[in-house]
Parts: sequence; C-alpha cells; structure tokens
Amino acid sequence: MYLSLRNVLRFNCNLQALQRSLSNTKHSPAVISSRMSSEYRIEADTFGELKVPVDKYYGAQTVRSTMNFKIGGPSERMPIQVIKAFGILKRAAAEVNKDYGLDPRLADAIVQAADEVAAGKLDDHFPLVVWQTGSGTQSNMNVNEVISNRAIEILGGKLGSKDPVHPNDHVNKSQSSNDTFPTAMHIAAAKEVHEVLLPGLQHLHDALHAKAVEFKDIIKIGRTHTQDAVPLSLGQEFGGYVQQVKYSIERVKTAMPRIYELAAGGTAVGTGLNTRIGFAEKVAATVASLTGLPFVTAPNKFEALAAHDALVELSGALNTVAVSMMKIANDIRFLGSGPRSGLGELCLPENEPGSSIMPGKVNPTQCEAMTMVAAQVMGNNVAVTIGGSNGHFELNVFKPMMIKNVLNSARLLGDASVSFTDNCVVGIEANIDRINKLMNESLMLVTALNPHIGYDKAAKIAKTAHKEGGNLKETAIKLGYLTAEEFDAWVKPHEMLGPK
Amino acid sequence: MYLSLRNVLRFNCNLQALQRSLSNTKHSPAVISSRMSSEYRIEADTFGELKVPVDKYYGAQTVRSTMNFKIGGPSERMPIQVIKAFGILKRAAAEVNKDYGLDPRLADAIVQAADEVAAGKLDDHFPLVVWQTGSGTQSNMNVNEVISNRAIEILGGKLGSKDPVHPNDHVNKSQSSNDTFPTAMHIAAAKEVHEVLLPGLQHLHDALHAKAVEFKDIIKIGRTHTQDAVPLSLGQEFGGYVQQVKYSIERVKTAMPRIYELAAGGTAVGTGLNTRIGFAEKVAATVASLTGLPFVTAPNKFEALAAHDALVELSGALNTVAVSMMKIANDIRFLGSGPRSGLGELCLPENEPGSSIMPGKVNPTQCEAMTMVAAQVMGNNVAVTIGGSNGHFELNVFKPMMIKNVLNSARLLGDASVSFTDNCVVGIEANIDRINKLMNESLMLVTALNPHIGYDKAAKIAKTAHKEGGNLKETAIKLGYLTAEEFDAWVKPHEMLGPK
Amino acid sequence: MYLSLRNVLRFNCNLQALQRSLSNTKHSPAVISSRMSSEYRIEADTFGELKVPVDKYYGAQTVRSTMNFKIGGPSERMPIQVIKAFGILKRAAAEVNKDYGLDPRLADAIVQAADEVAAGKLDDHFPLVVWQTGSGTQSNMNVNEVISNRAIEILGGKLGSKDPVHPNDHVNKSQSSNDTFPTAMHIAAAKEVHEVLLPGLQHLHDALHAKAVEFKDIIKIGRTHTQDAVPLSLGQEFGGYVQQVKYSIERVKTAMPRIYELAAGGTAVGTGLNTRIGFAEKVAATVASLTGLPFVTAPNKFEALAAHDALVELSGALNTVAVSMMKIANDIRFLGSGPRSGLGELCLPENEPGSSIMPGKVNPTQCEAMTMVAAQVMGNNVAVTIGGSNGHFELNVFKPMMIKNVLNSARLLGDASVSFTDNCVVGIEANIDRINKLMNESLMLVTALNPHIGYDKAAKIAKTAHKEGGNLKETAIKLGYLTAEEFDAWVKPHEMLGPK
Amino acid sequence: MYLSLRNVLRFNCNLQALQRSLSNTKHSPAVISSRMSSEYRIEADTFGELKVPVDKYYGAQTVRSTMNFKIGGPSERMPIQVIKAFGILKRAAAEVNKDYGLDPRLADAIVQAADEVAAGKLDDHFPLVVWQTGSGTQSNMNVNEVISNRAIEILGGKLGSKDPVHPNDHVNKSQSSNDTFPTAMHIAAAKEVHEVLLPGLQHLHDALHAKAVEFKDIIKIGRTHTQDAVPLSLGQEFGGYVQQVKYSIERVKTAMPRIYELAAGGTAVGTGLNTRIGFAEKVAATVASLTGLPFVTAPNKFEALAAHDALVELSGALNTVAVSMMKIANDIRFLGSGPRSGLGELCLPENEPGSSIMPGKVNPTQCEAMTMVAAQVMGNNVAVTIGGSNGHFELNVFKPMMIKNVLNSARLLGDASVSFTDNCVVGIEANIDRINKLMNESLMLVTALNPHIGYDKAAKIAKTAHKEGGNLKETAIKLGYLTAEEFDAWVKPHEMLGPK
Repeated sequence: MYLSLRNVLRFNCNLQALQRSLSNTKHSPAVISSRMSSEYRIEADTFGELKVPVDKYYGAQTVRSTMNFKIGGPSERMPIQVIKAFGILKRAAAEVNKDYGLDPRLADAIVQAADEVAAGKLDDHFPLVVWQTGSGTQSNMNVNEVISNRAIEILGGKLGSKDPVHPNDHVNKSQSSNDTFPTAMHIAAAKEVHEVLLPGLQHLHDALHAKAVEFKDIIKIGRTHTQDAVPLSLGQEFGGYVQQVKYSIERVKTAMPRIYELAAGGTAVGTGLNTRIGFAEKVAATVASLTGLPFVTAPNKFEALAAHDALVELSGALNTVAVSMMKIANDIRFLGSGPRSGLGELCLPENEPGSSIMPGKVNPTQCEAMTMVAAQVMGNNVAVTIGGSNGHFELNVFKPMMIKNVLNSARLLGDASVSFTDNCVVGIEANIDRINKLMNESLMLVTALNPHIGYDKAAKIAKTAHKEGGNLKETAIKLGYLTAEEFDAWVKPHEMLGPK
Repeated sequence: MYLSLRNVLRFNCNLQALQRSLSNTKHSPAVISSRMSSEYRIEADTFGELKVPVDKYYGAQTVRSTMNFKIGGPSERMPIQVIKAFGILKRAAAEVNKDYGLDPRLADAIVQAADEVAAGKLDDHFPLVVWQTGSGTQSNMNVNEVISNRAIEILGGKLGSKDPVHPNDHVNKSQSSNDTFPTAMHIAAAKEVHEVLLPGLQHLHDALHAKAVEFKDIIKIGRTHTQDAVPLSLGQEFGGYVQQVKYSIERVKTAMPRIYELAAGGTAVGTGLNTRIGFAEKVAATVASLTGLPFVTAPNKFEALAAHDALVELSGALNTVAVSMMKIANDIRFLGSGPRSGLGELCLPENEPGSSIMPGKVNPTQCEAMTMVAAQVMGNNVAVTIGGSNGHFELNVFKPMMIKNVLNSARLLGDASVSFTDNCVVGIEANIDRINKLMNESLMLVTALNPHIGYDKAAKIAKTAHKEGGNLKETAIKLGYLTAEEFDAWVKPHEMLGPK
Repeated sequence: MYLSLRNVLRFNCNLQALQRSLSNTKHSPAVISSRMSSEYRIEADTFGELKVPVDKYYGAQTVRSTMNFKIGGPSERMPIQVIKAFGILKRAAAEVNKDYGLDPRLADAIVQAADEVAAGKLDDHFPLVVWQTGSGTQSNMNVNEVISNRAIEILGGKLGSKDPVHPNDHVNKSQSSNDTFPTAMHIAAAKEVHEVLLPGLQHLHDALHAKAVEFKDIIKIGRTHTQDAVPLSLGQEFGGYVQQVKYSIERVKTAMPRIYELAAGGTAVGTGLNTRIGFAEKVAATVASLTGLPFVTAPNKFEALAAHDALVELSGALNTVAVSMMKIANDIRFLGSGPRSGLGELCLPENEPGSSIMPGKVNPTQCEAMTMVAAQVMGNNVAVTIGGSNGHFELNVFKPMMIKNVLNSARLLGDASVSFTDNCVVGIEANIDRINKLMNESLMLVTALNPHIGYDKAAKIAKTAHKEGGNLKETAIKLGYLTAEEFDAWVKPHEMLGPK
Repeated sequence: MYLSLRNVLRFNCNLQALQRSLSNTKHSPAVISSRMSSEYRIEADTFGELKVPVDKYYGAQTVRSTMNFKIGGPSERMPIQVIKAFGILKRAAAEVNKDYGLDPRLADAIVQAADEVAAGKLDDHFPLVVWQTGSGTQSNMNVNEVISNRAIEILGGKLGSKDPVHPNDHVNKSQSSNDTFPTAMHIAAAKEVHEVLLPGLQHLHDALHAKAVEFKDIIKIGRTHTQDAVPLSLGQEFGGYVQQVKYSIERVKTAMPRIYELAAGGTAVGTGLNTRIGFAEKVAATVASLTGLPFVTAPNKFEALAAHDALVELSGALNTVAVSMMKIANDIRFLGSGPRSGLGELCLPENEPGSSIMPGKVNPTQCEAMTMVAAQVMGNNVAVTIGGSNGHFELNVFKPMMIKNVLNSARLLGDASVSFTDNCVVGIEANIDRINKLMNESLMLVTALNPHIGYDKAAKIAKTAHKEGGNLKETAIKLGYLTAEEFDAWVKPHEMLGPK
C-alpha cells in the first residue's frame, strides 16, 4: 500500500503519467530505507507512507522534504531562530485554542512540547533546508510533527500515530503555514534584533563614545577627498562615528513597529478562515507576553501574507547600518595604517600574528571582518528586496530565503559590533607624536586666513609653500600678505575647531 | 598670461612635469575658444584665466569643469532640483550673513539672484554633469559664480569682475562646498519627497482604497503559490494593496527626520571654521521658513559631511516602496491577463494600441512602466548604498551620484504612481462573470470542511475530485464522508471570508 | 468623432465603464490641444484621432504615449542610441523587404528616412520616455511614424495620411515591436561598446602601461591590509592595474558574441509569423554590413524575445569593469593623498581649485568621478538583473529600462576612462623622495631574513624595532641574530622584487 | 610566561596601553581554559601561548582566531571546499618544495597530511569562521597547523612542538596567505563549478530538451505582456528555456579561463619574494595534474592578490544563470497554475502535501526553491561586487566573504538545478485539452490576417469580437472584410509557427 496518490493520473493529463508512475521507484520504501538509519518507524502523510528514523520526532512530511530538496547541505538549514520562534507561536496558539475549546490535556502537552522547541532542546529534529517550498510549509509541518509526536510521547501514545495529538488538527489548529511562517519570521527577527543586534550596536556606541571623550583634546589634521584639510579634534572625528551608530540604533528601531505586527489569524489567504474571532488578537497578546516584546496582530492580514515589506524595510535599515559600519571600519584602518608608511595616527590593538610570511606584521583584522560583514549585509539586502518584490496574489513565496537573510544580517552586524568593539575599539590609542607632526606641517591651516586676507591670497600662500616646500608662516610673510604677529594671532589650530 | 599655476612643478616631483606643461596645449586659449561660442569674456580662478560665453552667468570654475569632465553628456547633468535647492540655501545664507555684517546691498542682490536660481529662471546656466568632483564643489562654485555675476549685474557691475560681489567671499560666505552640497541634497530630497513622491503615493492609495470599497462584495478565488486557494473578496485583495501603499507612505515619512537635518554651518570638515556661532541654526531656520518644511541644523556636523546615511536610509525606504509597487503592479497585470487565455478577473483600461503586429492587442502598459520603475529604484538603491559606504575621513565624495539616484527614485515612483493611478487603477473593472465561474469550480472550498470531517478526509475529497474531474459536493457524497445537506451547510464561500 | 474605441464597454465588464467614458474629458481634444503647439494636424491610430504638432514627423501613437506616460521628464527619454539603432534596423528591413516584394519606390524612401534617423538628423522627433510599455512598442511606433511621415514627405504625400507609406504595413513590415526593440537594443549596445567603451578602456590601458614602464625602477614599500609590507616596484604596482584593464577589455569582448545575435525575424512571439523564410538572416547580414560589426541572426528567437540574458551578461561584464575601476581609482587617490599628511607617493595633476573654503587645496577629482561612475554601474547592474529575471512567457517587458542602464553603464565607463586618463593618469608623477623615505624606514624588509634565520626570530626583530622605534639592522644585531655584514648581504630591497 | 607581546607598549603610543595590558585578563590562560575541553596541550604563536584541545590538530593561531572572531556561529564557518582546496595546494607546494630542496621525509609527511585534508578526513579540525581577517590568513595558518601537527604525528613527533615539521617554515614554505588563499579560492571555485554547477545545468538542459522534443507538436497560445498573443508550439516555448540553459553553461565556461589562473608564487605582495624561480609554474602544473583542471600560473601576480575580479566575473556569470532560472521557474509555475483557476496548460508533478490547512492542495514547490535560490545568487553577486571593489594597494581583504558567496551561488544553482529537474521538469505533462481550448478561443489568431487585409481592419475584427464576446471568424464575416472560405484559408494556427 505504498503506492502514493502522487502516482495516479490527474484529469486532463495524458496516459504517460500513469505508465511512468508504475515504473517509478524513486519514492518506493526499499529505496527510502536504504537512505535512512537502520531503525525506523512508518509514518504517513496524504501522499503515502514513509520511513522515519525512530530517534526523531519529525514525521512523514519532514522526511519527504529531505528527499525532495537536496539543496545546499546542512549549512543551509532553516535558521534555528525560526524554529524557536515557531515554538513560541505554537505554545501561544495552543493556549488560545484551549480558550476556544481544545481539549486541555492535549493543549497542555502541546504547550510543553512547544516550550522544548522554543528552548532549543529539540534542535536535532529540524533537518530541513531553507530551499524548500517558498511558504515554509514544510518547516511549519516539521514543527507540527515534532510537537505532535513529542506531545503524544508525553501523553503516553505511540509516535507517528497522530493520536491523541494530530499535527494538523491540533498543533496547527486555527493556523496555516501561510500565517504561521510569517508570524515566526517576525518573532525571530524581533528577537534577533533585540537580543543580538541592538545590544551589539549599543556596545559599540558606548565604546566609541568613550573614545570620543578620551580624545576630545587631541587636535589633528582633517582630511577631505583623502587630502589634507583643516583641523578638527580626534574626539570630534570619533564623535561622527558615535552619531552614526546612534542613528543606526534609531533606524533599526523605527523599522520595528511593522515587525511587531503578526500575521497569525490570517490562516491560508488572510481571511482567517477556520479560525475564530479574537484568535488573532489573543495569539499576538500571548506571544507578546511570552517574549516581552510589543507584538500586536497585523491590522491587515492580506498584506501580512502576500507581502513581506516589513522585512524589506528592516533589511533596508540593516543595510544602512552596514553602510555606517563600513565607513567607520575603513576610517579606523586607514588612520591606523602603518606602522611607518601609513597615516599612523591611531595605534590599533594587535590581536594575532598578521602574516604567515612577513614576521611581526600586524593587521587591522577586526576592521576587515566588519567590512566583510557590511558587504554581506548589503548583498543580503538585495536578495531580500528581490524576494520581497516577487510575491504573487495572496502569498509571497520567498519567505524562507527572506528571513534567512534578515537574520543573517542582524546576527552578523550584532556579533561583529561586539567583536570589533572588544578586540579593536576599546584598545585604540592615539599616536600623539604623529598626530601633532602631521597637523603642524599642514598647509591647510591657511584657511584661517580667509576672513583676514581673502581666499585668493590665502590660496597663493598655500600653493607657493607647496611648490617650494616651505611652511605657511614664512611664505605668507615673504609674499608680503601679513606680518609674523598677524600670522600667529590668526592661525591657531585650537581655535579652528568651531565657529566663532 | 594664460599659463596656469597647474603648470608649475610641484615640490618633490621630477622635472618632467615642467617640460610637459610647456608643450601642453590642452588648455590653451585657442583650443578653448574653438569650443566656445564666438562671443566670450575672460574670467579667472586660482588656476588661471578662461573664456566664458558672454551670455552665461557662470564663470571660470564652471568652464574648467566642463573641460575636465566630459562624461555622459547633457542627460547626466546635475539634477535641477539640486540647483534650485542651492538657490534656497544661498538666499538663506545671504540673509543670515547680513545679520552677521554682510553689506546689506550685496546681501540683497545675492538674495534676489538666489531667488531666481530657486525659481528655475537661470536653469541654462548650470551645465555641469553629475560625474565631477565627489563633493559637488564645482556645482557649488557654479552656483556661486552665477549668483555672483547676476548680483553684480543687478548692482550695475561688470560680469566676471567679482566686484562688488565675490563668489567665494560673499556668496559662499561662512560656507564650504562640503556643507552646502549636503545641505542642498537634503533640501532637494525633502522637496521631491513632499512635492512629488508623497502626493503620488497618496493619490494611488486613495484610488486603490476606492476600488477596495467598490469591490468589497465580490467574492473570488484566492491564489497562493499561484495555485487555487480558498476564497476572499476582491475588496480584501485590493485592501492588501491599500495597506502596502499606506505603509509606503509611513516608511518614507519615518526616514524624513534625518533628512530634515542640515549640514550648513559645518563648513569644510564639520567644525564650522570660518563661520559664526548661531549661523548654522539661523540658516536651518531660514530654509525651514522658505520651504515650509521642518528643517533643523544637524546635531553633528562631522557625521553630516562624512556620511550620507540619511540618504541611504531614505533610499532604503524608496526601495521598500518599489518592492510594494512591484507586487501590486504584477498582481494587477496577472489578474487582468487574457482577455481569453489568462486569469481574466480584472478588465484593465485600454490606453493605446498594444502591438505593431497583433491587431487589437491591449497590454497592461502602466503595470509595465511601474515595474520597470521599481527595478530601477532597486538598482539605484545599490548605487546609493555603495556610494554611502565609501566615504573616508571627514568627507564622503559620492555626493552628486547619491543625490542623483535618490531624486531619480523619488521622482520616478511619484510620477509612476500618478500615471498608474490615472491610466490604470481608476479604470479597473471586475469581470464578475469570470470571477464567479472560477470560484464556483474551485476545489479549495473543501477547506471549509476541515473543522467538520478533518484534514485527511477533506484532502481525499479534493484529490479525488481533481483526479476525476468532478465537483466537490458529488465527490464528497460519493466517498461517504457527508450528506448533501451537510455540504451545503458547511461550504458557503461568503462565510469563508473571515473567522467565526 | 474623437470618441475612441477605448471608451466602449468591453464584454463582461459592467456598465460603469461606459458611463465613465462619457464623462471622461481626460483625453478630449480641447484638453489635448491646450498642451500642444498652436499648429497641429489630426492623426489617428486604432484608438482614435489626436492632434499632432505640425512640425513633428511623429504621429498619433507617439502623442498618445506622451499623454499616458508622464514619468520622469525629458532626462528620462529613450536613449538616442536606441533610436539611431532603430534607424539602422529599419533601413535594413526596408532593403530586405524590397527583395521580398516591397514596392521599391516606398522601400527607397524608407531607406532614406531611416538613414536620417540613424544619422541623428531627426532626434527632436522622439519625445518618448523610457517608462512606457515594457516592450518598447511605443518607441518602435514612434520610429515607424517618423519614418513613415518623412518618407511620405519625400514622396510628396501628406503627413499623417499613412499614404503611400504606412507605418505598420510598410515601415514595420515583417516586424513586430517584440523583435525590433531587442534588435535595436543589441545594435545600440554593440555600437556603444565599440565606439565608446572599448576605445576608452584601451586608452586607459595604454596610459597605465606607459606609467608602469616609466616607473619600473622605482622601488617602494608594498601595503597589504593597508599596512606596511614588503617592497615592490611602482612599475609592478601599476602593472597590476594594467592587467585589470586588460582583463576588463577581455571580459567585455567575451560577452559580445551573444550581443551580436539579433532577434529580428522573430516578430511577435519568436515564431516569425508574418515574415518570410530568410528574412531574419538577411536583415542580420544587412545590419552587419551597415555597422561593420559581426551581427548574426539569433539561433533561437523565443529566447531572444522572452529573455535578455545577453544584456544581463554584458551588464555583468560592465559590473566587473566597474569593480576594477574602483580599485584603481581608490589606489591612486590614496597613493596621492597629502600633500603632507597622507601617503604622498604619487603627485596627481591639479586640474581645478579644490575647495571653496580651503585655499590652495587640490583634490583627486578624476578619481572621484571614476568611483562615482563605478558605483552607478554596480547599481545599474542590479536594475538590469531584476528586469532580466522578471520576463514572463514569450516576452520580457523590462526592455527599455534594461537597455537604458546598459547603455548608461557603457557610456559612463568609456567616458570616465578617457577623462581619468587624460586628466589624471598621464600626469601622474612619482614623488621619489617620499617613496624612498618610506621604504627605507620600513620594518617589513625583515621578511628577507626568513630563509636565513627563520620566521620566529625575524618576527622578534620586527616587533622589537617597532616597540623601541629602532631600525631593523641595529635591532637584529643587538638581538644577536646576525652580523652587520649578514644583514647587508641579505636585506636588499632591489633583490626582494621577485623569486630567486 | 603567558604574557604576550601584544601586551607591550608600542613606540609612540602612550602609557595607558601598558597599564591596561597588565590588568587585561581577557586572554589569560585561566579564562581560556574554562572555555576549552578539559584536556589540552600548550601551543604558542608569536603572540604567546594558548591552550589547544588535545584531540585537535590545529594550533595556537587557530585557537586565537576563535577567541577574536565570535561572529555568526558554526553555520558561518569557512566553506569546507576552501579547506579541501588548501589540501590540494599544500600537497602541490610540498612536492615542488621537495624539488627545491625540502627534506623529502618532511615533504612526504606533508603530502600525506595534505591529502587527508583534501579528502575531507580532517574536517573537524577547521573551526574558523568566514568573518576573520580579510586575507584568510588565519585559515591558511589553520591549514598549516593541522598539516604540520598531523605530519609531526606521522613522523612520530610531539603535537605542538613544530618539530620536525614547522607550520610556517615547512608547510607554508615559499608561500604566503596572500597568495595561497586566492589560490585555494580559485581551486575551490573551479571544482565547485565542474563538480556541482555544470553537471547540474547540463542535467537540467537535457531534461528541458527532452520536453521540448516531446512537446514539439502541441500548438498553444503565446503570451506577451502576460496577455494572449499569437500561437507557438509548446516545444518552441520549452526550446527557449533550453537555449537559456545552453547559454548559462556557455557563460559559466567563458568565465573560467581567469579562474584557472593561480596566484601561488606571488607570496606576500605579488613579487614572489622568498620563493624560487619556477615555483609558481610548477605548483600550478601540479595542481592541474591533481585536479584534472587546466590551471596555470597567473600572468600577473599583483593583480591576482590585489584584485579578485575573476571571482566577480564568475559571480556575474552565476548572476546571469540565476536570471535565466528565475524566468524558467516562473514560467513553469504560471503555466502550471490552477488546477482550475489558473492557466493550467502544464500539469506539474505533485511531490508533497501543499498546505497545512487546504487539503489536497499541491504547489509548484520546486519552482519556489529555484526562484529563492535565484534571488539569493543575485544578492550574493552584490556582496561579491562590493567586496571586489574595495581592495586596496597590494591586497584585497574581502577574500573569505567573496569565496563564500561564489561557492554558495555555484552550489545552490547546481543543486537546485538537479532538484528542479528530477522533481519537476521530468514529470511535467502537457494538459492538451486545456491548451487546445485556450488556443482556439484566442482573438490573436487575427494576426494571420494582417498580410491579407491590413493591420487596421484586423484590429477592428479583434476589438469587435472582444467587445461583443464573439469569435473571430463570425466577426470578420459580419464586418464584411472577408469570406468564410478566406478565413479558413488564412487562419491556420499550425501555419503560424514560422515564417513562410
């Protein structure tokens, strides 16, 4: 009785299909068993029966997905954050379903099993990759199967029997993949943002701010167009970085209100068919309670299933954060370049040997990790954008890809911020001798003369000094534009740091 | 005396430079004049003299830029919105400078000339392309030169004399390209958003909302994975689009606070050197007054010059808007596909002949224009991202490219929204016969049976009906799962549009 | 009789449409005329009659498009290169059609008019923007109308009469927008590549190569991770750039074979309906002859209409070229940074005043223009990618957007290469004193000791010298690892430039 | 003696560094040991000693990297393909070094250990993540340490002793991270392309080609602009897909010549310092021999280290492949949409239950996986582009990020091609009844009348039939444009499939 429904001819299709199906052994038990562990049980979905490893809680639909989607290998698995978010959602749904009449005994077992999923205790039971159905249906079913079987076990039943806890009728009650997967996406994204990204950015912000304060009295040459310009303090320079990170945090936060909106309750197409009035609101409230985050039910479930603009928006915020990180990390490595043939204004911490051939070389490796992360986040944003733009009708089917990229970006930026802070920023020292030397030799101090002698004469001084290799003061006097006293009175770097 | 300072040997560089300069005729007057109109005047910058067409207000630095940057031709000119924004800024600066002691006669002439720039009366005097110096210095100087010469003219002086109004000393007083160009970028972006983009989106929103109301009682088949699914109303489907546009407007608005921050007052590196205490705040207030938009001075000028994260953020919002537009336009063209071999649920307005070879063909051309615009905006966002990430030290030098792309995205989305609304959305009709036919034949109404007979039996009904070409009711009865009366009581499309 | 077919109710759509059409004044003559020049003639397409300016050759469909697509303004017009390519194609088609029986008198007039289009003599007659129908149908009709009316004029007929030269039946004979627009895209792209991009890259290559030769004996410090590393010659460093440009040229060329394939002959869906056996081959051969480029007919017309992977491929090559340009321009501006507080190894030409506030400042503006161009090309590539991926069934309808971006990328890269070469590369001087000073102070010369004393001891020398600020030789001797004679024998920068 | 050199004050940096280092316990053994397995040995690098798990072959530098780069977790590890490629390279280098004098006993042990790395036997010994130093130095050292320790073990030495096989002096002999990592990148990319991507694409090509042949006689309605158009055969439609995949293969292959170029022999900056004349060529030849792929030594080592344009180029080819895949998968899911309310021309294989709420629903899940992969590849391409463009001077330091993305794209496209082929393409059936019905009802057959009655009359027929819901023949006769006999003679779908 292993012949699946898949193998029967559908109306309007020609007879070849039937012939093929009879000789098609691809999904036959013998073949399947050879790829499974020697110990297995039989489970069935609407397509037929399959062998499932006895030590796994998942069931037939999960196994079927592993057979149909051999794309990318283990490193491409559905992010575990999505699985854990599903655990939270399934617990919330079970609690709410109990209010609406679900047998409390079943509901409680589901709650217990879902908690285990949320706590990461069952991670080994989620083998599916991102590159599956674009609605994440199979991962929703993977969760339903694991919770169902684990709840059955809790209740003393037989794994795979779907009794007394059915994966669809009980665990998935009042739900559809189409609303649960986007709900899990938003829960996972919000948690990653709050647990990894924002703390990481705040950590970086605080360290940069401390440096800005530490460096506030160090006057240095400014650089525009990579060329020498008028002076500023090193504290002001770092203050610009502080502001960028401050805004990074704001940008991420401004994207969150729409992430806090949950699709749960929309079921298959957004109408909420087969669910109950109030279910959506109660689930969102329960998820909010479980996570401590201000989740609400989405005001429009059609939008919440068919579009994932909220994730595109969040990814756009992450993209902007990446842009800020690239700027900061680039500046720091260039300011720290040297030790002798670079700009050399900063001394960066030495964390590891820098070269397998050049002895004693030390490199700005944290800056490099950060800029690589930034480039990845920018690429991820394009993938999310393309996925987000290609939804059709009542469902966007780029869901797993989109959440994978958003989570990856949030995690990498958060982790890299901490690594960059702890292994680089906090250890940055100003090379004061070098900073002073460069500033005092600069020709751009001539700018201070503009209000006194005009732009054209000041330009003449700078160009002449550059051409002749002289310093500004001597050249200015030689050209007869001012006296030594005037020069000293007008050109004071420490008075060039702000308006008058 | 046309030999420019450029041609003298700089210190530390070898003698070859001098030899080359003597034989270098590239910039010689004869060559230059051949490329100019026959009538010209002589103007000079710190690099030497150049011929300027007599009928133009710009001066030597503008001419020099046209010689040095022959990249892309007239269609690549600095967006006129940037020029007009400069007009606003230069007027504001002149007013504030008057408070700080600028000769009122000069200030008033500058104000008058700047107003003409802002009003678009001098558009022909701004020939420079985007692909110039990355700080936009030459466009700032182009503005300074035009305003200076026009103000000189107003005051009865001689064009090109820099007297009594000097482009640097007076028009650019208390300013630098490095703070004026980003200020003009923000003014231009804010105005484009408010004058073109947001009205366009609101226009589209309102039209879609009217359609959602008009279509609220039309029940149709839903589609997920592009496949038949459970029903919803056409009004609900359009309601999803309405929500997307509503959020589009919100997203753009949430990006604006940081666009309203102006760099003016930061001058060359952010310190505000050569400007006055209070100048920054007064200029921002004046610009706010002139534009009616809530501009303020940027809290950190170093960030405001060295990074343009605010534009990356806005571009990210536009990218998300583009994602929404792509979804909506794609849906509408597919729902309107046919007339006979497509989905055919919508009748789209016929605006023009559709084919030069297929007579009578009508195409969803407004959807096509909109989706092309969306793709462009997504590409623009990557350009802005890359430019934003590559700033160094005290200055980002991808300014002209960044603002070009942001303005382009805002304009295209705004214009396309209006065009799409007026030429497509308002004329969309529901093809009710077709919609009814498709819904009634659908197998997915079986979903309504889940709560009554369970998922597995319902699946059996649907699959059997599909296999045999039968309808759901007959098949359900034949399989013995329910009675005709039960089917009629349970499967009611109009009761499948929401939770119970 | 201005009531157009557009205004009649379509089958299955409800009555509202008719009511609306009767009150719809949007397209009424009065409104239209107010936006036209005061002198006009009446022309008609299958949708009805419209007023056309008497001084224009275009007709009703062109006017209708200007009414329906008010998106982006004049700077967003269909690239003139596409129009000129259409001129070539229409001439070729007319010649071939003559072979197949088109009245020679008509054919010759079409040829003459098409030549004028190809020569750019009628540029003012092509007002349509890129953001129109995604097949470019309206631009094809614009060309058909202009050529038809011009040919009518040549033959002494009445403009707008479609007699004796009909835009569809004669100018568009054996053609469809669906095959002519992609043909024009490929002709335009190939010409832009050959006339602008490849000469520009070759020009840059040759200039960099000359510098590599000029600098071959200048030994300088290398930099990896932006940090000091072992030496190389400046000629070797420039040799890397030369290789990048050499490969850039190769990459563009390897993408061209598929650009040389022309869709002409596929007509509406790729089958070649309504054309003649041999037409496709003859048109391609004629275009090849007219352009001197090796065009051939596409081996599969279905692919040639439905996908524009060839343009995505070419755009990918341009993207890679942009990557190379970004690297080269970035290096040159950093190596030329200073004049006193940067790396200062190169002296870049001074082309214009660099700052409106900092007198005497000179900036690497050509590098900035080039890197901005590079960022734009990378963004364009994403737009092209998205457009290319969203074709459906027999036609990709992102055609105008795709070719706009490809042409923009090719033009900008070509123009910027010439500008960068002439205004920067050829004038680069090595600052030999600075180069020598930096190299001699470097600690990384210690690498030469690896084979003699091992990596660990060499590292100890470098780290100690760095810590103590000493030089390598003294430190090495002090640590007792070698003698002065050994140091001098082993550490010779000029012997560190290659393997032994 | 655990105080590392890192903790000593560097010249020019102020005293705070020393004070901090003395109180800095971050790297202290106690802390470290708490994070390690209970069993460990002590190893040292130039920064000091660290505890290494006794069951691991890696050494101090690897451990140090795991401490410094806690970014992203295990799923972000350096792709194992890079590690295996390093195995091949290290074996080749050892063989060549033996020719140049390396003790054969050591060389042979290195060869044996390297072979084990290449064979994947030591995968557990490579814990480092992608987000490390941008040159991949730490992964090169990870490989050096593992091979060194394993070779020591083979020779009976003590792990961690660096005796008799030193990771730098022997395993890394004549090499630098800067040339070995790019060499490993190219080897890994070439192998992934040849072993996964090209076979996958060929597999898909062959299956699509078989379908094109199978479907060659099925005439169907064409669709342009998603709207009904003139007919073509289903075989022709699939033939377009075949051509796209054929070109995909060509595009990948044209990018390979520059991937076959190996950087080995360039050592630290491209000069080949500390290597021997002939080393580069011999290593490339040995790698070619070991892999069976036509590797050669890069003609310019400076370009090969400082730029990775070859990877950007390959990524661009993969991007174009992704564009093709998106088109094909989108078409197939839309053509297979239904079963009753979509286009329904194709019957796609049913592989799994499609919905957790809609019983019996079957979805085009393989198309969805493929389109998600395509979006990811497009995003990856942007990341690679940004990384490639940001190299500086003698080294690009985005290496690990770049190769990760290229390998990911190649793997996903290859795997998805096989999955899509086996689980979708081979099982596609034509729904002939549906196809015939749609074609016969189409109005676009009117196009066949163009040559006989002209475009304008044909348009009138189509529009009238559309308006009135009639069929073409009746309408044409009623309008008096032709006779029934003429219609039958002129409108023959099977004669509309090509030119005449």
